[in-house]
Amino acid sequence: MDRNKNSALAKILDTHLSTLAKTEGLEQELILAAIDAGTMVCLANPNHQNLTPLLVGQPAKIKVNANIGTSPLSSCLETELEKLKVALEAGADTVMDLSTAGDLDQIRQKMLAVCPKPVGTVPIYSVGQKLLDHNREISSMTADELLSEIENQCQQGVDFITVHCGLTKHGATLAKNNRTLGIVSRGGSMLARWMLENDQENPLLTHFDRLLEICRPYNVTLSLGDGLRPGAGCDAGDNAQWDEVLKLDELCQYAQSQGVQCMIEGPGHMSLDLVYGQIQTIKTVTHHAPLYVLGPLVCDSSPGYDHISGAIGGAIGVQAGVDFLCYLTPAEHLTLPDINDVKQGVMASRIAGHIGEVALRRPHALEREKRMNAARRDLNWEEMKQAALDPGQVELRRREHKNEEVCAMCGKFCSVKMLKDLREK
Amino acid sequence: MDRNKNSALAKILDTHLSTLAKTEGLEQELILAAIDAGTMVCLANPNHQNLTPLLVGQPAKIKVNANIGTSPLSSCLETELEKLKVALEAGADTVMDLSTAGDLDQIRQKMLAVCPKPVGTVPIYSVGQKLLDHNREISSMTADELLSEIENQCQQGVDFITVHCGLTKHGATLAKNNRTLGIVSRGGSMLARWMLENDQENPLLTHFDRLLEICRPYNVTLSLGDGLRPGAGCDAGDNAQWDEVLKLDELCQYAQSQGVQCMIEGPGHMSLDLVYGQIQTIKTVTHHAPLYVLGPLVCDSSPGYDHISGAIGGAIGVQAGVDFLCYLTPAEHLTLPDINDVKQGVMASRIAGHIGEVALRRPHALEREKRMNAARRDLNWEEMKQAALDPGQVELRRREHKNEEVCAMCGKFCSVKMLKDLREK
Repeated sequence: MDRNKNSALAKILDTHLSTLAKTEGLEQELILAAIDAGTMVCLANPNHQNLTPLLVGQPAKIKVNANIGTSPLSSCLETELEKLKVALEAGADTVMDLSTAGDLDQIRQKMLAVCPKPVGTVPIYSVGQKLLDHNREISSMTADELLSEIENQCQQGVDFITVHCGLTKHGATLAKNNRTLGIVSRGGSMLARWMLENDQENPLLTHFDRLLEICRPYNVTLSLGDGLRPGAGCDAGDNAQWDEVLKLDELCQYAQSQGVQCMIEGPGHMSLDLVYGQIQTIKTVTHHAPLYVLGPLVCDSSPGYDHISGAIGGAIGVQAGVDFLCYLTPAEHLTLPDINDVKQGVMASRIAGHIGEVALRRPHALEREKRMNAARRDLNWEEMKQAALDPGQVELRRREHKNEEVCAMCGKFCSVKMLKDLREK
Repeated sequence: MDRNKNSALAKILDTHLSTLAKTEGLEQELILAAIDAGTMVCLANPNHQNLTPLLVGQPAKIKVNANIGTSPLSSCLETELEKLKVALEAGADTVMDLSTAGDLDQIRQKMLAVCPKPVGTVPIYSVGQKLLDHNREISSMTADELLSEIENQCQQGVDFITVHCGLTKHGATLAKNNRTLGIVSRGGSMLARWMLENDQENPLLTHFDRLLEICRPYNVTLSLGDGLRPGAGCDAGDNAQWDEVLKLDELCQYAQSQGVQCMIEGPGHMSLDLVYGQIQTIKTVTHHAPLYVLGPLVCDSSPGYDHISGAIGGAIGVQAGVDFLCYLTPAEHLTLPDINDVKQGVMASRIAGHIGEVALRRPHALEREKRMNAARRDLNWEEMKQAALDPGQVELRRREHKNEEVCAMCGKFCSVKMLKDLREK
């Protein structure tokens, strides 16, 4: 990525590089080299007040995103702000406001105002909502409408945007004709419909230079969306999917040459045996740009528990090179997540990230494991709580028996206690 | 396994083989050959009334076990019977009664009476409890006491028992001296203490022939316990662990030659990168005897969410050869599971098993996925419910919006709906 062309980013790094290096436990030179190589991005729009910039891209720590936002069937600003709070408390590194109902500008501004971590959006949702409000078909959208909404969100302070620039007419046709579940990305669907009905190429692709001009002054990172991610295991890894990945790489390389940071978005549904190969291939094809993945969701039949299936795919994904995990909640495929779902989703993704990092032997992850195991050996419950990914759960679960040295599962038969007694004899 | 020496098993197969073949979707000849080869076991004690026998060992379907039972800090028969019911409703294939408090004979008999699926136990727990009741140290236990308790449980109808026969004085010493968390198996700890304090070899090893004589008439399957399973990622894969695995193979081969069925129990804590290699190695060393695994738990720092970490390890484990998953619940490492934990634990293990089977392309698993995806394509919510691993969750989550064709996440922006409308135009 050509840093000389992005003065907004240069300023942010001037101010924050030393803190970022400390937070990540990485050398400043390594971070700058990775940003230059396009394998790491710094999420930070100068217009986002009180933001702490964030690095995404291994060997920076794995990051977790929580999707929140209103929907036509469930729209309440206060609830979404509460979800934002819960997501941050649970340890989300970013949130995406995917609202599609209510006063979208107001919701976005409120979220940006209270969120000290990067906020992402999918700008085409807002355009879609405006069209619907005026009873206009998606096919009537103009490129100007889409680009001016993107500019509006950049000015508001959004740090990264999902733009499905790599979705081509050819790819959309392949997906529509050859798949069980076609196109399951909402933004991708809208663009596919626009292209097929107008018989024109994707406006985000044909106007890619204008998109870069709009984003650069705000250092808004493009999250190059996977509009053709498979929505069913049986659709995984087909021509349509790879057609888009190849295009995303081209666009990513070009954007970087123009001083705009990019991440690549990844699948999606796929069976467990495909995860390692697909992630490695996507990373290689896209020159190791930061990979932002939804799941991967390694089975289709676990509605109500997709946060678990997603964590299974996510952990392997991280081991294979994923940098950024988008959470799935227990509500996925069924309804909008509630407050508790948000918490469960963030935790499941954080666990997947941690497990992947332990497998990769990242020092900060091993340090946490070491601390936990020393605490377990000593039956030191306060220390276990501190080492846990969710200290609150340790507190809660221990409440009833908090004065016991052992836990209520084994009681007197606690093997750790037996060994401790033997050691202390 | 020498079937000619086990008339109890022969009778069970005479009666149930055709049903078992149907249930598993396997040829009868394949099942018999696998039982003979010792790569599959049929869990069924003729004294267990109303039992439906169960096959364990791929390519039979992956099975899931739920551990229930009282503990010194939480002892209520009714609650445990309720957990049994919930475990079965959630789809557990077996339960193990790990009670260590209350009237253990009564608890076991009640569970056997109401459980139509195989029931397992760890008989040394009962011996340990009796010793404690009489203020006797574990070191004062006699081999006769242990073997007569095993015989008692065989007579009662227990279908499989965990016996830590492969734990040697040498292995226990290695684990005690070289590990962060030593021995975390409760039964293993008790035996290790017995051996080290008496300076004698494991009574289950020195009296292995008597153990076989006791179990054979009841076709009680030995679940050869991994007393030295690592209790921390940093202890995984050490000499102590492998010393026991090698011994378990010897004992397994010998038991099979004497007409007694065996499973091998496996780890335990290990990082994700080790799962595939360890499982493959254990399976190879033990001549592909059915492998019954706790987890593997692929991180130490997720108390409150160990069912998720266990499912991550379990899914990879199944892909690598695991046959039988013992659940972990959200309560693991913290307290005894409650009713909801039991449900969550069974579901997480079933999801792991299903994901592993999809990766292995098992026909019944792919069939479920196919049905779900067809239902999703058609927005047929009733059919999605039927295809789901937990139909109840689909019902529950949809309740508020059950008359909507789409779900409350995307509403009007439903990509599947857009495609469906396009198809139906």
